[in-house]
Amino acid sequence: MLPGRKAVTMRTARILAQGDELTTGATVDTNSAWVAEQLRLRGVRVLGLCAAPDDVELLARMLVEASRDCDLLVSGGGLGPTTDDVTAEAAARAAGAPLVESPEALAQVRDRFARMGRPMSPSNAKQALIPQGAQVLENPAGTAPGFALPLGTARAFFFPGVPQELRTMVERHLVPWLEAGGAAPLLRRRFHVCGLGESLVQERLADVLPPPGVRLGYKTWLPYNTVLVYGEAEPAEARERFETTCAAVRARLGDDRLGEDDETLPGVVGRLLLDRGWTLATAESCTAGGAAALATETPGSSAWFRGGVVAYDNDVKRSLLDVPAALLEAHGAVSEECARAMAEGVRRAVGADVGVSITGIAGPDGGTPGKPVGLVCFGLALPDVTRTRTTRFPPFGRERVRAMAAAAALEWLRRLLVRA
Amino acid sequence: MLPGRKAVTMRTARILAQGDELTTGATVDTNSAWVAEQLRLRGVRVLGLCAAPDDVELLARMLVEASRDCDLLVSGGGLGPTTDDVTAEAAARAAGAPLVESPEALAQVRDRFARMGRPMSPSNAKQALIPQGAQVLENPAGTAPGFALPLGTARAFFFPGVPQELRTMVERHLVPWLEAGGAAPLLRRRFHVCGLGESLVQERLADVLPPPGVRLGYKTWLPYNTVLVYGEAEPAEARERFETTCAAVRARLGDDRLGEDDETLPGVVGRLLLDRGWTLATAESCTAGGAAALATETPGSSAWFRGGVVAYDNDVKRSLLDVPAALLEAHGAVSEECARAMAEGVRRAVGADVGVSITGIAGPDGGTPGKPVGLVCFGLALPDVTRTRTTRFPPFGRERVRAMAAAAALEWLRRLLVRA
Repeated sequence: MLPGRKAVTMRTARILAQGDELTTGATVDTNSAWVAEQLRLRGVRVLGLCAAPDDVELLARMLVEASRDCDLLVSGGGLGPTTDDVTAEAAARAAGAPLVESPEALAQVRDRFARMGRPMSPSNAKQALIPQGAQVLENPAGTAPGFALPLGTARAFFFPGVPQELRTMVERHLVPWLEAGGAAPLLRRRFHVCGLGESLVQERLADVLPPPGVRLGYKTWLPYNTVLVYGEAEPAEARERFETTCAAVRARLGDDRLGEDDETLPGVVGRLLLDRGWTLATAESCTAGGAAALATETPGSSAWFRGGVVAYDNDVKRSLLDVPAALLEAHGAVSEECARAMAEGVRRAVGADVGVSITGIAGPDGGTPGKPVGLVCFGLALPDVTRTRTTRFPPFGRERVRAMAAAAALEWLRRLLVRA
Repeated sequence: MLPGRKAVTMRTARILAQGDELTTGATVDTNSAWVAEQLRLRGVRVLGLCAAPDDVELLARMLVEASRDCDLLVSGGGLGPTTDDVTAEAAARAAGAPLVESPEALAQVRDRFARMGRPMSPSNAKQALIPQGAQVLENPAGTAPGFALPLGTARAFFFPGVPQELRTMVERHLVPWLEAGGAAPLLRRRFHVCGLGESLVQERLADVLPPPGVRLGYKTWLPYNTVLVYGEAEPAEARERFETTCAAVRARLGDDRLGEDDETLPGVVGRLLLDRGWTLATAESCTAGGAAALATETPGSSAWFRGGVVAYDNDVKRSLLDVPAALLEAHGAVSEECARAMAEGVRRAVGADVGVSITGIAGPDGGTPGKPVGLVCFGLALPDVTRTRTTRFPPFGRERVRAMAAAAALEWLRRLLVRA
């Protein structure tokens, strides 16, 4: 960072979270990690992440201690209508200001309920209580307004803890404030991969040696892995080093790179299908709708996704997908033969160009020595050919096997569409 | 008696984590949540979770501040061989003790490498440096020994950050220490609700005034809300106060209580269906398999879930669910008429006792003034009658509308089965 910019540039921050669900281990604090990444991308150094229980004394003390040595405090949670939401009161105590009803905040809460067409309960009025003198921050995604005030050496922002509300409010209120403060942005590019373990991805990139100012990171968010490249935006040579590293990562990942930055697996699959004017149908047994739900996560998916059949029971495989009883008898439902019949059957039944099928053993029960838990067969009926394959997923639990299988089906289709 | 242990019961703790990967948001801190749960189960109240970057000054300060008001400090991470592992040095600074090479720790590191059949590198010798006077804690799962020492008012335990090593060492060193201290277990009961806002739940419980030693908490994990009751297990009167409060919460929630503790919505629906010997089928448009995937989250769901149809395109509603073209023409796909036809159609097509249907506008596009984003119609075809209903979900985004609609369908079925 240039010395001359120090006076105006935001440099350090602390992130706070509140809730008994965090300090009792009931919930993992994903909010704070997300905020930390947003701050990092804007050149802010995070000095600490802290979580406190629903206890106004402890929280007030944490606020005082956290605001002694940094420029920015970001707090998530505790702004709800219930009695264990005590963040506003703790902030008032930490600031030495009374808690007052803000007409502006109250109007926002009222307006929010009116627009939802729901009655506002008396307890929601509590959400309009903020420390005197604080700035009200509108919440476009929920009922609890946020607020901001000076605390210690820091500007302190208080947001709700519901992840979507927190994210919307960080983007609406905090990011513009950081940018107005001249925070030097960090460049970041994300390369997404599905179906390769983190160690395999790292090996693939072993000979990519980042130049000065450029760093590589890895993130696993099942069933995906992401390679992160960070770099400086200025001067131009720094940006060039960043882009050169990105190009090297892109080349090493090859077809395994499913997308970059905000691209998603269903979004990419949908684009590739639209390019050919093809539509998709799904036939699912063990994932039971998970692949269809994944495919349609992206708005606009109705342009290429027609529908599917959840054939959980073998009767349904026979009646709706025309899987022959003799085939099921001879090979069982978890077989490439059945996957083939399901993919072709759903392609016909739904009237789509491509049919994809999933049949496997999600567990925890139902495994045998020959067909263990985690074994999943896939079918892919294309206009000219049907392919099948079998994957054995690690037995990391029913939920993970199902999520990995649903993604693997779309990822397989993506690879075929990219390569063909 | 171990050094640093107080004669009274262990009551409060703080949990610390260390690493740039946490403060930059690259990694979500799951270790601390796990430790928090272990402590809660043994009656320890956690006052806070904190994470610091790989910075010896910040970490030493965090240790000093965290050990001022509790009986136990649990630190995870920063004991590795690299230069950014600075926890031992920070602990030494916080304790005002020099960092010394422990012959006992060095022997453990050497022994570990010998057993792995790998050469010990000079940097691994760094792992034998601990604060003078600290107790060495053997690491059976990795190379870095841990250590324990008195710090402030607390006994402080330092463990490695690799999840498996941390867990093994907590079980081997911390749990026996807690149990020797006679930690009193805390009681907790969870009451789950679906489809009521947190503020409505709070109002419903407004006249439940928890007696001394009993606390109420609330947790929102869309699309569910959970009421938590915490209480003390001893003496018997305390346990009685806890149970009395639980009974009051249960009575106030009535039929809205979908289950308790580890019960889940699909698990409860499945049990109610099995009680009647009924099976279920799903017909989904906007949720596109989400309700079927939710229904089958529970192992053993194949006993009552037969399958379903994802009728994303209107053609599929006609061909697989027999929804009349004239009906779609007259009322549109998002209508109670269509929901009725879908529910009855899937009940017949799949051959189930109950058919449930979902058709709505998940957004962000596709809304009209008459049928806005968030509007969802449901159908429920039972053996003797078909019911329909319409709900307008708050426009909190495609993902949330879909998740809420899928859960609402099963919750509606649950209520009907409970009441009938």
